[in-house]
Amino acid sequence: MTDYRRLRVALLGAGAVGSQVAGLMRQHADELADRAEARLELVGIAVRDIDAPRDTDLPRELLTTDAESLIVGADIVIELIGGIEPARTHILQALNSGADVVTGNKALLATHGTEIFDAADQVGASVYYEAAAAGAIPIIRPLRDSLAGDRVVRIMGIVNGTTNYILDRMDGEGAEFDDVLADAQALGYAESDPTADVEGYDAAQKAAILASLAFHTSVPLEAVHREGITRIDKAIMDAARHAGYVVKLLAVCERLAGEDGAESISVRVYPALVPRAHPLASVHGANNAVFVEAEAAGSLMFYGAGAGGVQTASAVLGDVVSAARRHIAGGVGVGESTRANLPVVEIGRVTTRYQVILEVDDEPGVLATVAGILSEGRVSIATVEQTVVTEANGQPGVARLVIGTHRALEKDLSETVDRLAASGVVERVVSVLRVEGE
Amino acid sequence: MTDYRRLRVALLGAGAVGSQVAGLMRQHADELADRAEARLELVGIAVRDIDAPRDTDLPRELLTTDAESLIVGADIVIELIGGIEPARTHILQALNSGADVVTGNKALLATHGTEIFDAADQVGASVYYEAAAAGAIPIIRPLRDSLAGDRVVRIMGIVNGTTNYILDRMDGEGAEFDDVLADAQALGYAESDPTADVEGYDAAQKAAILASLAFHTSVPLEAVHREGITRIDKAIMDAARHAGYVVKLLAVCERLAGEDGAESISVRVYPALVPRAHPLASVHGANNAVFVEAEAAGSLMFYGAGAGGVQTASAVLGDVVSAARRHIAGGVGVGESTRANLPVVEIGRVTTRYQVILEVDDEPGVLATVAGILSEGRVSIATVEQTVVTEANGQPGVARLVIGTHRALEKDLSETVDRLAASGVVERVVSVLRVEGE
Repeated sequence: MTDYRRLRVALLGAGAVGSQVAGLMRQHADELADRAEARLELVGIAVRDIDAPRDTDLPRELLTTDAESLIVGADIVIELIGGIEPARTHILQALNSGADVVTGNKALLATHGTEIFDAADQVGASVYYEAAAAGAIPIIRPLRDSLAGDRVVRIMGIVNGTTNYILDRMDGEGAEFDDVLADAQALGYAESDPTADVEGYDAAQKAAILASLAFHTSVPLEAVHREGITRIDKAIMDAARHAGYVVKLLAVCERLAGEDGAESISVRVYPALVPRAHPLASVHGANNAVFVEAEAAGSLMFYGAGAGGVQTASAVLGDVVSAARRHIAGGVGVGESTRANLPVVEIGRVTTRYQVILEVDDEPGVLATVAGILSEGRVSIATVEQTVVTEANGQPGVARLVIGTHRALEKDLSETVDRLAASGVVERVVSVLRVEGE
Repeated sequence: MTDYRRLRVALLGAGAVGSQVAGLMRQHADELADRAEARLELVGIAVRDIDAPRDTDLPRELLTTDAESLIVGADIVIELIGGIEPARTHILQALNSGADVVTGNKALLATHGTEIFDAADQVGASVYYEAAAAGAIPIIRPLRDSLAGDRVVRIMGIVNGTTNYILDRMDGEGAEFDDVLADAQALGYAESDPTADVEGYDAAQKAAILASLAFHTSVPLEAVHREGITRIDKAIMDAARHAGYVVKLLAVCERLAGEDGAESISVRVYPALVPRAHPLASVHGANNAVFVEAEAAGSLMFYGAGAGGVQTASAVLGDVVSAARRHIAGGVGVGESTRANLPVVEIGRVTTRYQVILEVDDEPGVLATVAGILSEGRVSIATVEQTVVTEANGQPGVARLVIGTHRALEKDLSETVDRLAASGVVERVVSVLRVEGE
């Protein structure tokens, strides 16, 4: 066995991911040493409660509640506590004491990323965060290194497994949101409080991280437009299917060219209609996928498990090996690049396409009225389909209009939908969804 | 503008990829400098004929037929000549003069990879080859770095765009191989001599490169089992579709566990049946995709353009930026890892699943005879479907048997098919294909 230099690795957190990281580090110690060209010595695991029940057996002598002492003298600190504090303080302490940091903490990076990357820059340390972006899917290195000679134009990601699981089952089974959510909770795919997932907060954090990386711009979480999937019901799913689409919760990060040549970006999370033939449409279950369009490389897609303890542990360990190599090679690590620092525009200034489903009075002239309102709002109709929903005794009933628009300014689209809703001829706005990937 | 150190970049070859690389280097000079933290100065482009017609305008003063002089003094040499010689000699010269090398030369790496990686190791230089594995798809860094803490179990790749284009059109249109090939040639998707693509030679080179990287083993091209797609016809496509499969030319790289715990690997290229629900089944047109199964990360897929000048140039430039960073940071580059050096077993010792389509006499007892031959050959039947093909005037006609086997040793499977063909009750072996991804 090669006599490698030893590196001291401190692990903070022993939850689903942390305990798998600890287990794999012991199980594959020799292979990891060969790949890192260093022996990775797990010097301790900081936990809140040493006696808490755990899925995996961890050596009791490694457990400690004193994270701060553990961090002192560590070469690499793996932060898998999650949340803002004490994770933030521990990471800053680690960087300031010369350690490289591996983290899977998307909430922290999306809110305090700049502070953390700046701290790393100042001491010449590195922060690795593959596990924070899309679980086990290798997306950080492709965006940062493989596409370093290219320009990313757009990212469309399915970056939340829970919502994809729910939407996929609604699509496949024709089930209602509440029923599938209850089922997902029973199966452990969704939390008892599902807000972070179904309202898009988790996806928004990942979108901020991906956009920052792809566009060399610090994207604050507040700049990410966010809509969840709680309003998606069976009727919307059926209409999507009928029109050749599937509904996916997408994180969209887009480079925009202004009229004056000045660039800006848009980062947004919302449920959208994706054509069935698009590669993202065939991402089923709790899987994730990130679809990247680059100027030269064209369309790329990265697909895999979006969550799961052992899957995410794989991403963490890949980072640990990279951190070890860098720690030994010396030199300055690869920090966050914010040299482009493009402005992030609000959703109203983005152009998108809408599919609007309306229930209207089934009377002569209604379509003309609707078309007139769209035209006044600078919204051009691409497709329209009218079907009669109810008709009673030869009396005028209710018709359904499914309108697909051409690309238009979000502000114009949303204001036009408001005007339609208030127009008197529209009984009900059944659904308003953007169309992406077409 | 930041005052970066200058790095001298020599480009060998100005074909479809090379001319795009030269163009993008000039177009994005400032962005590349920021990412590489070095100004990349294209000092010359070695070509065979300075006056040859080219798609892209290249500055004439950069063109030279004297590659050797260009290489002397270069910090980074980009080799895009292709083929074995003079590419091999140039790369060795570049490494020995201290340059890092970026190449997209799969034929060279698959046959002389060890020589080249050894030469790089000896001088502490690096060889980057993202463009050699699957066009623009970032697969090298994910395999080498992101999965460095994991163990790859299996790779299934669609790594040849021409054959995927042909098979996809045969599947979608019910067309015959020859017609689609002729069309593909007319459209420029296939070469006038399509042998390298349709006989699987190109895919076998890529399989050798991917397997070497994934399993830390030097895989010689001769160890790759290779079958092409020329025997795939409409009847086979129809039968595949009927059974819920699509035919894809797959590169399969697999880690095998022996009875004694000793590991080995199998690397093979053949047309295979892939279930329609598998992510690889929805890879259309000339696109490529690499499906990776790892112990911890689970299933991952990397999808994108498999070829194309500008797409491949993106992969080359990503490597150039990495090479520049390393050249400046100093230290030893990441070489080829062959520390596992697992034996590559021949196809006969691999277990696979077959789907066999037979035309048999439609007489009593035939199925029993067929089943008996399979059983004697240690091949267990998973599914069987019998349909009558022809029946004349109440006389016995020809029946078609579609047999899906359980997993069995390739040797047993192929010998059993031979015995079936010679059994007297089988009129014709219509098709024999492996089933993968199920």
